[in-house]
Formats: sequence, C-alpha cells, structure tokens
Amino acid sequence: MQTATAASSAGVLGLRTAYRTGTLRPRDMVEAVLARIAGRGDDAVWITVAPAAELRARATELERLDPALPLYGVPVAVKDNIDVAGLPTTAACPAFAHTPTADAGSVRRLREAGAIVVGKTNLDQFATGLGGGRSPYGAPESVFGRDLISGGSSSGSAVAVAAGIVPVALGTDTAGSGRVPAALNGVVGLKPTRGLVGASGVVPACRSLDCVSVFTRDIADAAAVLRVLAGPDPHDPWSRTGTPVPRGLTLALPESLDFEGDAAMRAAFETAADMAGARAARVVRTSVAPLREAGDLLYGGPWVAERLAVLQDFLAAHPDGVLPVTRAVIEKGAAFSAVDAFRAQYRLQELKAWTDRLFATADVLVLPTVPTTFTRAELAAEPVARNLVLGRYTQFTNLLDLAALAVPAGTTADGRPCGVTLVGPAFSEDRLLAAAAALLPAPVPSTPEVP
Amino acid sequence: MQTATAASSAGVLGLRTAYRTGTLRPRDMVEAVLARIAGRGDDAVWITVAPAAELRARATELERLDPALPLYGVPVAVKDNIDVAGLPTTAACPAFAHTPTADAGSVRRLREAGAIVVGKTNLDQFATGLGGGRSPYGAPESVFGRDLISGGSSSGSAVAVAAGIVPVALGTDTAGSGRVPAALNGVVGLKPTRGLVGASGVVPACRSLDCVSVFTRDIADAAAVLRVLAGPDPHDPWSRTGTPVPRGLTLALPESLDFEGDAAMRAAFETAADMAGARAARVVRTSVAPLREAGDLLYGGPWVAERLAVLQDFLAAHPDGVLPVTRAVIEKGAAFSAVDAFRAQYRLQELKAWTDRLFATADVLVLPTVPTTFTRAELAAEPVARNLVLGRYTQFTNLLDLAALAVPAGTTADGRPCGVTLVGPAFSEDRLLAAAAALLPAPVPSTPEVP
Repeated sequence: MQTATAASSAGVLGLRTAYRTGTLRPRDMVEAVLARIAGRGDDAVWITVAPAAELRARATELERLDPALPLYGVPVAVKDNIDVAGLPTTAACPAFAHTPTADAGSVRRLREAGAIVVGKTNLDQFATGLGGGRSPYGAPESVFGRDLISGGSSSGSAVAVAAGIVPVALGTDTAGSGRVPAALNGVVGLKPTRGLVGASGVVPACRSLDCVSVFTRDIADAAAVLRVLAGPDPHDPWSRTGTPVPRGLTLALPESLDFEGDAAMRAAFETAADMAGARAARVVRTSVAPLREAGDLLYGGPWVAERLAVLQDFLAAHPDGVLPVTRAVIEKGAAFSAVDAFRAQYRLQELKAWTDRLFATADVLVLPTVPTTFTRAELAAEPVARNLVLGRYTQFTNLLDLAALAVPAGTTADGRPCGVTLVGPAFSEDRLLAAAAALLPAPVPSTPEVP
Repeated sequence: MQTATAASSAGVLGLRTAYRTGTLRPRDMVEAVLARIAGRGDDAVWITVAPAAELRARATELERLDPALPLYGVPVAVKDNIDVAGLPTTAACPAFAHTPTADAGSVRRLREAGAIVVGKTNLDQFATGLGGGRSPYGAPESVFGRDLISGGSSSGSAVAVAAGIVPVALGTDTAGSGRVPAALNGVVGLKPTRGLVGASGVVPACRSLDCVSVFTRDIADAAAVLRVLAGPDPHDPWSRTGTPVPRGLTLALPESLDFEGDAAMRAAFETAADMAGARAARVVRTSVAPLREAGDLLYGGPWVAERLAVLQDFLAAHPDGVLPVTRAVIEKGAAFSAVDAFRAQYRLQELKAWTDRLFATADVLVLPTVPTTFTRAELAAEPVARNLVLGRYTQFTNLLDLAALAVPAGTTADGRPCGVTLVGPAFSEDRLLAAAAALLPAPVPSTPEVP
C-alpha cells in the first residue's frame, strides 16, 4: 500500500491529516514501523521492541477510538529508563531490569492521547553519559554516519526519530541527554522546565534535576507533544502544579466563507487553514457575519463621507480632474446625515464589542485575504461590484481597530496566488508576526528570480 | 560586479549581511535598482522615480554613515499618496499634484534608519479602490501574469516588492489597500494597528481609519521595518503614544565560546547565530562563565551524590552489574559531605540570581548545543574528558531551573550536524518554540529519506 507507507513517514501533524483523510490507518502505521525496524537490522537503537501482536492489537483498539485525539496513531519510542507497563525497564543495565505494571506518568499521557508505544530505546547506562557509548546493548551510530557518535544518554530515542522510524520519542535530560543527541542527529530536542512534565516512573539519575524530554523532527511537532505531556503528576514530588503551562496559540477559523464560486481558491485557503489549525494548540470556529457587517459600513455607510471631507474643495475646483469612478465613490458621501453617522457609530460599537469577545477566546483569526482573483479585463467590466468582492475580508479591520498581517500561502491548483491574513486585536503585531512564522509554511518564492 | 548584483536582490536581513561583509556597497545597490526599473520598461509601477543623481548622492552619503543602521542601504518604494520631500505627491491625480518640502513621518523614519527612497508608486486614485486599475498612470499587472490584476490601491508598491525591484515598500491601508495587492502578488502585507505608525504626510482617504502599511517578501523583514516605523508622530492626531509598541525578541548571544578547536563548527554556529541576531529586535552579548560554573557543579560537585543516593543499594548488591565507567562516575558521590552540598547550593543560588538578571534583559539565549562532534573511536579513546566536552553548553540548565530547546541549524562545511539551543527561564517553552520558528531557518531534512 504505497500511499499508506508514504503517509506513515509524516510527522505528528502530517499523520493527523493522513488519518483524518483516510490515507492511513493505524494498522498500516504499525506494519510500516515494524518493517523499518526490521530493515535497519542491528542498529543498537532498541533494547526492547513491543511484541508485534501487541502493536497490532493497539492498532485495532485505535480504530475504535476518536481520530481527533492529539496523538492518534502516532508511534512513539520511549527511552529505557522510563516505565512502560509490561515491557522491561533496564536503564541499559541487565542486572537492574524489572517489568513495571504501570506506565510512567508521561507515557500514560501519550497513550491517552492516542499514541502507539513501539518500544524501549538504548541509552548510556543509568542515563549517565552524553556520548551514547556506555551501554551493553551497543553504541548507535549518528544518522550522519562516518562512525560519528549518536550522543547520549538518550541515544536510541534520538536516532529512532532522526532515522525516520518514529516521529516522536521520549528521552530524559539531566545534563543534556535530551539535547546532545538531538544536535548530533539533526533533530529537535525539547527539555522542558523541571516539573512541567511529570517524572514519575523514571529511573532517577539526579532526582531533583531529571526531566522527561521530547525528540521530534520539527518544532511544531515538539509543541504538539509538549501540550500532551505538560501538567500535574501526582506521583512526582517535583511536579509543579499551578504554574503556567505552555498554552500555545488559539486560532479562530471562519465557519463559512464566500469565495465567489472560486473552488480552487477555497481549496488553497482550506489547505493553509488546516495546516495552521493543526499547528495551533486549539481551534475555535467563528462566524464572520459581524465582520462583514462592519466592513459594509466602510463603503456603504457614512464613512464614505470622510473621503468627501478631504476632497470636497478639490472636486469643486477641478470638476474634470478626477476619474469618474473615483468621483462617483467619493460623492456618495454627500448623501449621509450626521444622524446617519452617529447611528452607524453606535452599531459599530456593538460590533467592536463582539470582536472583543472573539479575541478574548482566540489569539489570532485566520481569513483569506481575497476571495478570488480577477483579470484586468474582468475588473474593467464590473469595476464597482468586483472592487467590493476584493475587500470582503479586509475592509472591517480599521473600523474595528484591529491589526492584520497578509502573508502568501501557496498557489491555487491553476497557479494563482493564495493569501491568508492573520487578524488580531490592536497592538498585536508581535503576536501576528510570531504566529505567521509558527503556523504557516515558509513562503517560497512564487515569482521569477530577480534579474 | 556579479556578486554585488546578486547580493542586491536580498531582503532587509540579507542586505544587512551583504553591507557588513562588504559584498555590497550602497552605490552598487542604487545602480542595481535603476537597472531593474529600466529593465522592466513601462510596467505602470512608478509615478515618479527619484533622479539618478539624487540616488547616487544618497549612496555617497550612506558611505559616511553607520552600516549598523537598521535599514542601512535598503531601497524602498513609497506609495504616491505619502509625501517624500522634493518629489511630487500626486495620489494618482495629476491635477492634485504638489511637491512637499517635508517627508511624511513614516518616510522620515525610514530615511533616518538608512533607507534609500527610490521613488513614488502608482495607486488607485486617492487610494480609493482595491483593484489597482483606477489610475491615469496605468494598471500594473500582477507578477503572476496572465493579465491578473495587481490589486490596489497600493498597486505599484506591491509589484515593486514582488518583482524584486526593492525589498520594502510603503503602502497605505484603509479598506485593504495594503493587503489585497500583497495577496495578489504573493508578498507579505502588514497593516499595523491604526495610530501605531504615524500617518502625517499621507493624503487622507478616511482620516480616522488610514494606516501606513508595509510590503516585504518575508515576515522577518516586515517585523524589522515595523520596528523602525512604529512610534509617536507629533503631526498625526491619531498617533497613539504611550501604548505598547511591537518590541520583538531580545536575543542574548555569547561573548566567547570554546569549540575545542573545531573551526567548522564555530563557523556553522556563527552563521546560525548571525541569522537569529539579524531577525531579532535587539541583541545583547553575555558572558557564559556563570553558566559554565553552574554546569561544572553537576559532575564535579556534590550533585553527583544524587546518582549514588539512587543506586547505592543496587551497586552493593550487584558489584559487577554496572559498567566500570558508570560505576566510577556514580561512586564519586561518596566523596562529598553535607557541608559540601550546602555550600554548593549557596553558590548555585548566586548563579541563579545572575541568570535572573540575564533573562530580565533578554528573552532568549542562543548557544551551540555541542561544541564539537566525535567519532565512536574518539569517544572510546577518552570517554570521561570528551563526555564533559559534550555537556559544556547543556549541563547547567536544570541546576539553574531553565527551559531549553535544541534545534538543528544546518551542517558544518564538512557535513557534520550543527545544533543550536535556545535557552529561557522556567516555563518559557511557548516563547522558545515561537522564537525558534521566527529566528531560525526552517529545518531541512538532513538525513536520508525515510524508506
């Protein structure tokens, strides 16, 4: 099953999409991982791989569970100084081996989030060492080859992720055991604050300092796993409850949008919005009707009188100096009374209050920048109506005192530009710029090279 | 001058490097921009290009100024409803044209930051319209071609950036004029909060709503330009002073580092640190001596007794069950007294206080994850000393109650992995994850494709 095998190589966020769209099932994932482990032969990465029958049973179990679980069907490797119920914990010391009946606190959270625990990985004995060589189970080579060390002590976990066997692995980190092997294998290694992730069920190195750490292939995956792991652990006296946990970004995505029938633009926007949603901590859905009502006030309400206020004398002095279409827009401002202006301001205040409530529950709103594109000939044929179409998802922001960042988000299937806009409350520029970097793919040059 | 021409195509951050390293001079930049404008012929992008003699004089002037200016030698285009001293302001209405003697507030800030103001760009007349077609100076085509509209009203500014003529352009945005053309040309369009960037010297559309906006080719460039533009404008009654301005990230970079003579690793780290520094709002330099002192306590001080506290009984019961090197490390714990332990804790508290001060002035500290790499043979030859080398820039974090995120940062010239670690105070995980996304290049797969 070629498609499933390819999909099974994805990271956490890619797997989420593959499961949701049905291009991958947990059973395919299990077989792919087992094949990868077998294919690498004796690479000193694993101390214990879970029995194939148990992994297949977990796949069957997952097929009855909710695919919306944050780590649904994600295979994870666990450093062999962290307890996994039913598999031996050796700490790379055969004489120390024992088989726990309960998962470590961190492993329990992974399982509850839908992960598949594939097995236990090699380490420097008792997590003492940063090279990856102090183990009776062998010394893994870095994925960079050339006899380079993997680093340690979480040697097997780092290589398991870097080699593409699993997208996520747990390590521990007292002196650097979660970061040194990340660096030496070119993957991400997150060492959270001591106590943010519970360390119950971990063979202690220095009890007051030990952390459970996370290996992934990209930053967004590390953030997604941390959100699952972080939180109180009643069995770890160093667990820090009541302290701020990483909350990530809450994204508001629109409930329904009007793309003027441009299905390719809708598809391109939805791809970008899906990616941003997968990378966010939480997604809330919102109506855009209040935004559109506010936007309609700009050209259809009394604010057009602002344009006349500026240009009234000039228009009188230069009756032929202005384009007829521009003059027509501006002169509409004369039709509104002061009563109209105040009434519109009162309605706008109600819409502002709605916006305040939106941004009390979400950090950033993602919208298409434009609903569709036009050729110059199309615009010339229907200049006023198509102008309003172009402003549909932009023209409310200043009236509502919002900040906005428009960024490129790929192209439509037929090669036209797709843009998304991140919208936030006043003075949220830092947040919008950081969110764009974290949630969206890096912009690729869509235009010809500069001569 | 091939190198200078290539360098002149860079964005703000790339230009900063090109000027600093001397691969580009302002005079090369001016000639490159003039050649690009001439090369495109009649593209309806510009209403007025500054006289070549004036641009060359500005280049000469810049060669006497400080290349550390945030927009040193950056060519910018300015929408022709924003005043530039000495160039006509037309608002795309010839009858309205007048030549201001003073720069708009936003333009003044750009010039003071070292920018080269190249000229004035086309727009929908009086910034009324979102299509880019309402101008007696013509309707620019989108860089996506096929007669697609450029969008407006900041049509010329968006195309000037998207076509690679200049890396930065100012627009204005009342209803979407700074975002619609960004979307239709595949560039970034930032519409700041109304009043964050002063609008003095802008031909008003709706005075209570008008914003000066920024076009760039990437997000980091938009952030860099916003930091120059944001702030009070005494001539704009809508300017909002005393409100939070985007502060961006303050990065701490180490003053001196020991890479064990690995010059390729030093170079790879410095490349990554330079990029992160260029993308940050501010850089402070810090000693790492207090961090290294704290780290030395982990293996050289009484904390090693924590390892013995866990394993004392096991070692007694299984005298041959543990690797000799591991046993040697752990048994060092017996040599420390309780007095030693408390004295070390007092010293650690002083070092923690130093760290608190560091993170009061910086958001994130960037360090190499490891100073160098070793082969398995090299590590086996000198296991203890080389283990300590590997932990040099990691082992202090838990003692000092810090969070850390290790991320891949390219490779050395000879193909070994280079990793950097972002370090922050306890519970700064969200900040570290966002900073890694914003400051570092997207990780490229450095390992073979997953089978």
